Amino acid sequence: MSVKVAMLGCGTVGGQVVRLLTEQSGDLAARIGDDVELTGVAVRRPNRHPDVPAHLITTDAAALVESDVDVVVEVIGGIEPARALLVQALRAGKSVVTANKALLAEHAAELFAAAESSGADLYFEAAVAGAIPLLRPLRESLAGDRITRVMGIVNGTTNYILSEMDSSGAGYAETLDEASRLGYAEADPTADVDGYDAASKAAILASIAFHTRVTAAQVYREGISSVTPADVAAARALGRTIKLLAICERVDSEGAEAVAVRVHPAMIPRTHPLAGVGGAFNAVFVEADAAGSLMFYGQGAGGAPTASAVLGDLVAVARNRVVGGRGPGESSYAALPVRPISRVDTRYHISLDVADRAGVLSSVASVFAEHDVSIAAVRQQGRTDDASLVIVTHSAPDEALRSTVDKIAGLPVVHDVVSVMRVEGEEQ
Amino acid sequence: MSVKVAMLGCGTVGGQVVRLLTEQSGDLAARIGDDVELTGVAVRRPNRHPDVPAHLITTDAAALVESDVDVVVEVIGGIEPARALLVQALRAGKSVVTANKALLAEHAAELFAAAESSGADLYFEAAVAGAIPLLRPLRESLAGDRITRVMGIVNGTTNYILSEMDSSGAGYAETLDEASRLGYAEADPTADVDGYDAASKAAILASIAFHTRVTAAQVYREGISSVTPADVAAARALGRTIKLLAICERVDSEGAEAVAVRVHPAMIPRTHPLAGVGGAFNAVFVEADAAGSLMFYGQGAGGAPTASAVLGDLVAVARNRVVGGRGPGESSYAALPVRPISRVDTRYHISLDVADRAGVLSSVASVFAEHDVSIAAVRQQGRTDDASLVIVTHSAPDEALRSTVDKIAGLPVVHDVVSVMRVEGEEQ
Repeated sequence: MSVKVAMLGCGTVGGQVVRLLTEQSGDLAARIGDDVELTGVAVRRPNRHPDVPAHLITTDAAALVESDVDVVVEVIGGIEPARALLVQALRAGKSVVTANKALLAEHAAELFAAAESSGADLYFEAAVAGAIPLLRPLRESLAGDRITRVMGIVNGTTNYILSEMDSSGAGYAETLDEASRLGYAEADPTADVDGYDAASKAAILASIAFHTRVTAAQVYREGISSVTPADVAAARALGRTIKLLAICERVDSEGAEAVAVRVHPAMIPRTHPLAGVGGAFNAVFVEADAAGSLMFYGQGAGGAPTASAVLGDLVAVARNRVVGGRGPGESSYAALPVRPISRVDTRYHISLDVADRAGVLSSVASVFAEHDVSIAAVRQQGRTDDASLVIVTHSAPDEALRSTVDKIAGLPVVHDVVSVMRVEGEEQ
Repeated sequence: MSVKVAMLGCGTVGGQVVRLLTEQSGDLAARIGDDVELTGVAVRRPNRHPDVPAHLITTDAAALVESDVDVVVEVIGGIEPARALLVQALRAGKSVVTANKALLAEHAAELFAAAESSGADLYFEAAVAGAIPLLRPLRESLAGDRITRVMGIVNGTTNYILSEMDSSGAGYAETLDEASRLGYAEADPTADVDGYDAASKAAILASIAFHTRVTAAQVYREGISSVTPADVAAARALGRTIKLLAICERVDSEGAEAVAVRVHPAMIPRTHPLAGVGGAFNAVFVEADAAGSLMFYGQGAGGAPTASAVLGDLVAVARNRVVGGRGPGESSYAALPVRPISRVDTRYHISLDVADRAGVLSSVASVFAEHDVSIAAVRQQGRTDDASLVIVTHSAPDEALRSTVDKIAGLPVVHDVVSVMRVEGEEQ
């Protein structure tokens, strides 16, 4: 009696899953303790999949889920029909393996409840950071530890664009065009460049790390479209580089524990291990009380790497069927509040063009003092008509930092706000 | 009904396990679905553990294992009595969590057989690379992939000593003394500096990665005691640094698949990600067909980091008791042959003092040709009385490289063999 697998979707990732299922069938059987049999592949356009045996192809995904299968692998992406199909599968006791970050970031509670109702498994390692084993380590290896922070580069498209802007000095729009031309950005790059993709991943990471339900809507999100060559140059002048970071933190100021989850571009020191992560690679730092700092690095996207993660999960859920047992369910017992960005401590870099005369620094500095924001470093440099003033703050509530910037921008002595960006990645 | 845990040993790691079990008891119970109860701690010297409640302390480990416990955590280290106690526990159906690399590298088959006989769990994440989640990713996350290579720095003591030698230019003996004084090396550093510790870890990694039984005795092993300041200087001159590497490879030349497992110092480029791994940190690269290159980085030793890994395993085995199910057993179905180092392809760096006269390079080069060893790079530099000749080879069977070096050392034109070391970490 083999383990019967249905696939929903057969794009870049799905095609690789089908290939590996076939090529590695002997190894998979030995590792699972039973054969894996692919019983159907649901697609929208049946004639576009010449590599899949014709008798496996169907356009009726719901009927395939309803049929005699043990495991449903979902690689359609998007919310519907994936959500409805997976809830249907889980309620019917079928194990689910999915790579769908948007779905998990929005409907994890519903999916886990459906899995719980029947005792089915729900695995989704491929939803975050492609091939990098990250969710299993967080869910299982660190299950005896207290995770305090997860910070990483989890979107390859934006990382490619920012790396290119850093090395070429070119602007955002032209670099995005070039990335699209080379296939590093999708035709509609919104999900990547506006940070939605990273925000979904951050929600999933935070939920697991802090045993708390966090949805994508609760993640503070800024994309990279407003990153300018002036920002890149300002970062470089400070020995820094700009990365789009997903940051999930356990915060316990104000007397109570909470979590803060945010995605935004940030300047990090060029000596920081994340600074060297180029192109389409992903890397994630995890900090835990007992384990200390850990880093995970690898390919964050692509057909074969993502398929590797899908197949690892497939072996796990198939093995659970054969040997008995279940993988971890939802763990949201901590139910910590999610703190809005306004009340999260961050640090800002602010680069200004100011009038070059006496009293300018004093009037700028007084705005910081007014907002109770402490200054970590200042550099003022005179030019012909005006002066450049660069300020890096100590950490302070984000809303205080924003108010400070707003007020400074309105000062008569400030000619131009050249660059404002959060800084991360070093001791405060 | 709580999950009852017995601890064998209570040293640096055990003390941290006891502390975390107490401090995190609420979280652990929520994650497991039941309370964890520590029912006894077996130690040799009962009066040395003031932090452990007196009623838990016993000197009779066998009786503790025999008592009404569900899980046995072993942090004694060494082969006996750990082996006998864990076999006893596993045969009696008690789950085992151990940090014992030497035991796993020598007696994994016996332990897994004992676990299989009763259906008990055997987990040992803490045995390799401390807090870094590595065995679970290899055993589970990559279970659907084909791992081709695992290469890393898995011993903090030797990494500390080599980093210090690199930055100070000092010799091995004095650097080891300093490391001992600072607590980075043990009173008897043999297991670390002679590579036994790394070889045990390499055996465990290779067994899991290649689904093949590999014992420590099958691992080719060279320690760092013969690394000289001349080696360090030679590496530096080539833009390289010396690291003690554990390398587990799938090799499939000669028409058949095999595995090769080795531990030795090697020169790697200073730009290689492993070159930046300093002090007591560990880092491991994994290459797999579909996933591509992955890296795992973190603290490889120490009480709290290792305890984090032990507790992660404890949550897993306790959860398996509560929810039902079992973790992965031994996977050795591939049973690939282990190839001796003599027949493994490596690359050598060879630095010589030679006579500064016509025909020298020709006579040296002819020895390489004789052994069918191809040269990748040569640098000859004249000095007052003699010349320096540095050669880096292409890859060739290790025995051919050794024979080449032996023969060259005997050439009349060669005054001194300054440094011979394998090179790793770049395209061949």
